[in-house]
Amino acid sequence: MAKKKPVLNVALVGYSFMGRAHSNAWNQAEKYFDLPYTINRQVIIGRNQAACQDAADNWGWANTASSLEQALEKYDIDVVDITVPNVAHAEITMQALKAGKHVFCEKPLGMNSAECKKVTTAAEKAGVHVGVWHNYRRAPAAGLAYELIAEGRIGEVRQIRAVYLQDWLSDSSAPASGWRLNKAICGSGSHGDLGAHLIDTCRYLTGLEFDEVSGMTKTFTEVRPNESGKGKVKIDVDDATCFLARMSNGAIATFEATRTAPGHKNYNVIEINGTKGSIIWNFERMNELQFFTFDDIPHAQGFRTIMCMDGGNHPYAGQYWPDGHIIGYEHTFINTLADFLVDMKKRKALSPSFHDGWANQEVLDAVLKSADSRKWVSVKRVMAPRKLKASKRKAKAASTIA
Amino acid sequence: MAKKKPVLNVALVGYSFMGRAHSNAWNQAEKYFDLPYTINRQVIIGRNQAACQDAADNWGWANTASSLEQALEKYDIDVVDITVPNVAHAEITMQALKAGKHVFCEKPLGMNSAECKKVTTAAEKAGVHVGVWHNYRRAPAAGLAYELIAEGRIGEVRQIRAVYLQDWLSDSSAPASGWRLNKAICGSGSHGDLGAHLIDTCRYLTGLEFDEVSGMTKTFTEVRPNESGKGKVKIDVDDATCFLARMSNGAIATFEATRTAPGHKNYNVIEINGTKGSIIWNFERMNELQFFTFDDIPHAQGFRTIMCMDGGNHPYAGQYWPDGHIIGYEHTFINTLADFLVDMKKRKALSPSFHDGWANQEVLDAVLKSADSRKWVSVKRVMAPRKLKASKRKAKAASTIA
Amino acid sequence: MAKKKPVLNVALVGYSFMGRAHSNAWNQAEKYFDLPYTINRQVIIGRNQAACQDAADNWGWANTASSLEQALEKYDIDVVDITVPNVAHAEITMQALKAGKHVFCEKPLGMNSAECKKVTTAAEKAGVHVGVWHNYRRAPAAGLAYELIAEGRIGEVRQIRAVYLQDWLSDSSAPASGWRLNKAICGSGSHGDLGAHLIDTCRYLTGLEFDEVSGMTKTFTEVRPNESGKGKVKIDVDDATCFLARMSNGAIATFEATRTAPGHKNYNVIEINGTKGSIIWNFERMNELQFFTFDDIPHAQGFRTIMCMDGGNHPYAGQYWPDGHIIGYEHTFINTLADFLVDMKKRKALSPSFHDGWANQEVLDAVLKSADSRKWVSVKRVMAPRKLKASKRKAKAASTIA
Amino acid sequence: MAKKKPVLNVALVGYSFMGRAHSNAWNQAEKYFDLPYTINRQVIIGRNQAACQDAADNWGWANTASSLEQALEKYDIDVVDITVPNVAHAEITMQALKAGKHVFCEKPLGMNSAECKKVTTAAEKAGVHVGVWHNYRRAPAAGLAYELIAEGRIGEVRQIRAVYLQDWLSDSSAPASGWRLNKAICGSGSHGDLGAHLIDTCRYLTGLEFDEVSGMTKTFTEVRPNESGKGKVKIDVDDATCFLARMSNGAIATFEATRTAPGHKNYNVIEINGTKGSIIWNFERMNELQFFTFDDIPHAQGFRTIMCMDGGNHPYAGQYWPDGHIIGYEHTFINTLADFLVDMKKRKALSPSFHDGWANQEVLDAVLKSADSRKWVSVKRVMAPRKLKASKRKAKAASTIA
Repeated sequence: MAKKKPVLNVALVGYSFMGRAHSNAWNQAEKYFDLPYTINRQVIIGRNQAACQDAADNWGWANTASSLEQALEKYDIDVVDITVPNVAHAEITMQALKAGKHVFCEKPLGMNSAECKKVTTAAEKAGVHVGVWHNYRRAPAAGLAYELIAEGRIGEVRQIRAVYLQDWLSDSSAPASGWRLNKAICGSGSHGDLGAHLIDTCRYLTGLEFDEVSGMTKTFTEVRPNESGKGKVKIDVDDATCFLARMSNGAIATFEATRTAPGHKNYNVIEINGTKGSIIWNFERMNELQFFTFDDIPHAQGFRTIMCMDGGNHPYAGQYWPDGHIIGYEHTFINTLADFLVDMKKRKALSPSFHDGWANQEVLDAVLKSADSRKWVSVKRVMAPRKLKASKRKAKAASTIA
Repeated sequence: MAKKKPVLNVALVGYSFMGRAHSNAWNQAEKYFDLPYTINRQVIIGRNQAACQDAADNWGWANTASSLEQALEKYDIDVVDITVPNVAHAEITMQALKAGKHVFCEKPLGMNSAECKKVTTAAEKAGVHVGVWHNYRRAPAAGLAYELIAEGRIGEVRQIRAVYLQDWLSDSSAPASGWRLNKAICGSGSHGDLGAHLIDTCRYLTGLEFDEVSGMTKTFTEVRPNESGKGKVKIDVDDATCFLARMSNGAIATFEATRTAPGHKNYNVIEINGTKGSIIWNFERMNELQFFTFDDIPHAQGFRTIMCMDGGNHPYAGQYWPDGHIIGYEHTFINTLADFLVDMKKRKALSPSFHDGWANQEVLDAVLKSADSRKWVSVKRVMAPRKLKASKRKAKAASTIA
Repeated sequence: MAKKKPVLNVALVGYSFMGRAHSNAWNQAEKYFDLPYTINRQVIIGRNQAACQDAADNWGWANTASSLEQALEKYDIDVVDITVPNVAHAEITMQALKAGKHVFCEKPLGMNSAECKKVTTAAEKAGVHVGVWHNYRRAPAAGLAYELIAEGRIGEVRQIRAVYLQDWLSDSSAPASGWRLNKAICGSGSHGDLGAHLIDTCRYLTGLEFDEVSGMTKTFTEVRPNESGKGKVKIDVDDATCFLARMSNGAIATFEATRTAPGHKNYNVIEINGTKGSIIWNFERMNELQFFTFDDIPHAQGFRTIMCMDGGNHPYAGQYWPDGHIIGYEHTFINTLADFLVDMKKRKALSPSFHDGWANQEVLDAVLKSADSRKWVSVKRVMAPRKLKASKRKAKAASTIA
Repeated sequence: MAKKKPVLNVALVGYSFMGRAHSNAWNQAEKYFDLPYTINRQVIIGRNQAACQDAADNWGWANTASSLEQALEKYDIDVVDITVPNVAHAEITMQALKAGKHVFCEKPLGMNSAECKKVTTAAEKAGVHVGVWHNYRRAPAAGLAYELIAEGRIGEVRQIRAVYLQDWLSDSSAPASGWRLNKAICGSGSHGDLGAHLIDTCRYLTGLEFDEVSGMTKTFTEVRPNESGKGKVKIDVDDATCFLARMSNGAIATFEATRTAPGHKNYNVIEINGTKGSIIWNFERMNELQFFTFDDIPHAQGFRTIMCMDGGNHPYAGQYWPDGHIIGYEHTFINTLADFLVDMKKRKALSPSFHDGWANQEVLDAVLKSADSRKWVSVKRVMAPRKLKASKRKAKAASTIA
């Protein structure tokens, strides 16, 4: 660690839930990974100055600013990290790109595919390093799922079923607080919030693109108390969205996102069936992967539960603790950030790229269009289907119990 | 058991997989239930005389016959039980009804809704006791799920997700043996074979009817070896079928049936989310029910796994073994048969009735029509949605460990 | 099935819980297995004549008798099956042996090792076919566990942990009904009732014998209402018994049997760790086996859940239903009986033999002696440790879905 | 956060596995908890100067030192945190106490009960704030288990079974690297390493003390390659240790710690059965708690799986992420540290105190003495059994999804 590294000046836009998760990642990444940069948490940006200062104090941001514009004027900034509510993603991204900054944007990349296309095109022109924070890709178990599929262990993908179930809106008297129930700010409800993750995980793990979709949306509670509890709000986003899909290789898939499934807190589960085997991943048990293969001896075939915290064998696990000492939600952000920075140094595009964010949004938009038109809708092709590449990298040995 | 009971003369048509399951039920039901009839296994009917005689010898059928017609001529028969391949269900049912016999038909009731309507109408006219063998309803855990929902413990139903996953057709070199891959005999593939069970369980547990569906079908292996392995067969049924549904109360649902999901042998799983709670039932662990309710104390809420073999508390459990000594697949048939006979004596219609069988088929047909037309298709309403009735019956005490 | 088979005349002593389970097996075995005998359910024997007649009527026993003596006088009998309370096992076995009959005795073989030794010696002299009904050995998953271990897939056995947890005595106001709480009749409480199963499964799956044990017993509720609820009974058997063991190869083991573990109905679980892998079997999910091996590819190792109902690959599964259609508790008796009869015909000793029953009792007795003396106690060696034999038998193909 | 807080100068002794976990906690605690001190990571201490400097750079320790003595001379220090190998715990603790410093010591408190007594007595005299890092107590699910038991929801404790299974020593060719296989440095093998955690969790969750124990130890691999792979080492610690225990209220318990159970990475599981219910906690799924109660409606009783990440209801959960977004191993250290500091400010003794560390060691020592003498051994009573106190604290609301 003696070698001199270039300093990377970071601006973080936003300080709420995602702002916390990203701030933590900017703090922790250097401690667990040998990164190519020295991170300088230069400035945190937000409109509420007091909250912003609190976040700066808590997470070690050197400065605060009330807008990206102001921050760009006053401080050296290399990369802009965006965690504000969805509606502002594209605008802030454009601002950052115009200033020639690298951009790491929370999902979604924009409110709709038009916005996504715009920022993607602008980013290509700008020639900077960009990415979308689809952090779930970087759980060790998701990484292992990718590798097993890339190695051909489940054969060719035939079927995908993915559900993301939460229950915090089951109660019809729960208020419409925050911005996640306001279409003008969030774009859609469970669909964009949760379904977007399913789509990304599916695209990541299979390399497939979506050909066409048939969807339906549902809002069970159409009027909710407002934040103060004194008034009412008409809800204009979906509580639940389900859709069927046909994939680029002929595979078929079902998707469901909902915030009204009692008992499920963060049940983000994907199953992929191939010609030779299957994988199942459940984010609530994010350190475990279920894997089945017909290659096992015939009398001992079954889904095996892999505890993906073996540093010698599983992605990212070696950066943390000995076998079986699990990591949590926040570590997916740390891993994602580490990859973003390593790729930046190598001038290699991060996956998920802006194109990935845009492709994701094309699926989201097509589903809503289908729900509206009650027809199958073709998904505009942004990227070509990819062949997954089996890893050559040897996983780093886990910190031994010493 | 001293009271004199009327003798019930039974004719069973068919002797293969379902014939075995029904024969076992006709043998066992009297041993575990105090039935209103003395069962006389009068005759088993099949075209292959040797196989038929073997089955008769094995299962205690007094006689054999090569056709129902022949059997009706030669023997006293009260009830006709039909287990032949799907294509013959309606025809044999009509024959039996014409002869004034009670009819207990394996699912499906017919090859399509037209056939189902025909036999349902004929049965109404005949005034006999009829039913469809949707045996999964009679697993203790399914019965308990019904009761919990009927008691209002999950509130109003909002979402249903049901999958039936098998893997025996994953291997593209598996031959097209039997009749389950021949559309002319079976009607459809995974859809009618497995999906029909999902539809019935959904209708049973929720009391809801289907309003409209949007579906897709897929045949991954389009040509298979024939039974002898020397020729090829073009496959005309689906390997997998998925569909979205809107239910009579506004609930939304997703369904998937497949025989190409590696690792799943008989993964018949339904989850129902209501306003207040949820239930999940997995047939591979058929004696267990998962149940969640917001009524639990807030800091101790979670899905609970109920072992449904407590005779004092769970349906059918008291007929068999002490707590936690599980029963199996075949017992669902025994339970179903017992209810059929008890209801017959009370002149009360069995649920599932022929109307249920017909309603089920209307859903199946609508899904195929939707898959074909690529449109949402309305489901013809055969029955009105039902309000579930909470049980008043006190479960019989389990056989104690004595 | 056309070949003429010798008739086997059976006498069943007892008609309660175990009497029902055995009666069912005597009825069903011929239907699912191609047995070398035609079974004649000759006589069922019990002191309560009405109950005995009911059982005869229900299960198809041709005659009843009030004692084995009486039955032996009046009827042709080849084999005597004993299901009465423990205290009478040895006496009735001796009676049957003296009459030259084959004997199939429920566990335990006797009330103590002296009784077991006596009947074992007598059986050897008599030269008849005998066995103990340790039915759990014959669950498909237990059979598969045996085979995997015999094939060397977990290497040499090092550690065993076995627990059998029930909860029906958690409630201190539960009456002391039946004979399972009366030491003079049952011998011991949870220890002999449940622990005996653990010991047998352990000996069966590992081939190891017990060298020495250190145990403790506990009775939480020392006085209970009697059966009528009007009086009190001093409880003289254990609610729970735990012990440590050292095995013949140096392996170590822990055992626990209890009837006071809330939430567990029939949680009979054994885990065996070897040098190369592990197996876990839970009787509440008796059709599943958990298996781990270091032979799996390093990045995809994990416990796999094997659904042991594949007729082509798993013991007994081919006799019943297609893949994944589970069987239940009662089938373990059917399988056990089938093996008893096939072995009888081959003049091959059944495993578990009377020697196994005796060896089991030596362990039980040693544990009680240890609990009493508060010392490690050596277990008297009845049998030599066995090397497990990998199966050559090809499992019969499951009944296909036809 | 505007109020001025006193600065707390911290010295950390050790930088390996535990040093990393503690360093992380000293970094993160302030970010997630509103602590009464401003933490100054003053100095990290270790003999290898280069490694020590790397750790300082990585984790933000202001200085390094090669011994506590040296550090005490050069720097202001308020609290000494000890993470070196076991053998040095007591000595360094004594040094710190003599200097009047607060001490937070990794488990074990000493190599044996004599050492533990010595430091406990010294700490009492010193009147400083002390504690032992039994971090597993501070998992949200462990805290919830405590609360449910304190609230009386499982009634009086009757049975405990606790196992801690790992498999990294299954391979007999694995080298004896590190200090965990060297008795002179670690004291014992799996017993002190893993069993100590079981004992602490048991004491914490039940409030019971140990009366007597009967144990056995086993070393399967008696000679291993040394670290370089060129020589051999005679192993003088246990691979596995099991013991029976009788608790202060008459409850009975079984314990097992092993590093030779293939397939288990960090399977630290405790089950507690009371008169009315049970809890089960598995550290590999550390955010979940299993809970059963007879208070549930009779037909819907079962073990429920509680996802303990609801900030409004579960301990510590509100400090981190929204419902169902899990935390990991390292967070147990952060929570423990936060409590240590809050209690320090309140001049309230931390639980686990030095007395707890000593009591734990008395159990460990008694088990080894029992294994050696082959007798039941009384456990010296250090603390009186405690009555658990139900929480009055309202859990802080989780960070909402905003």
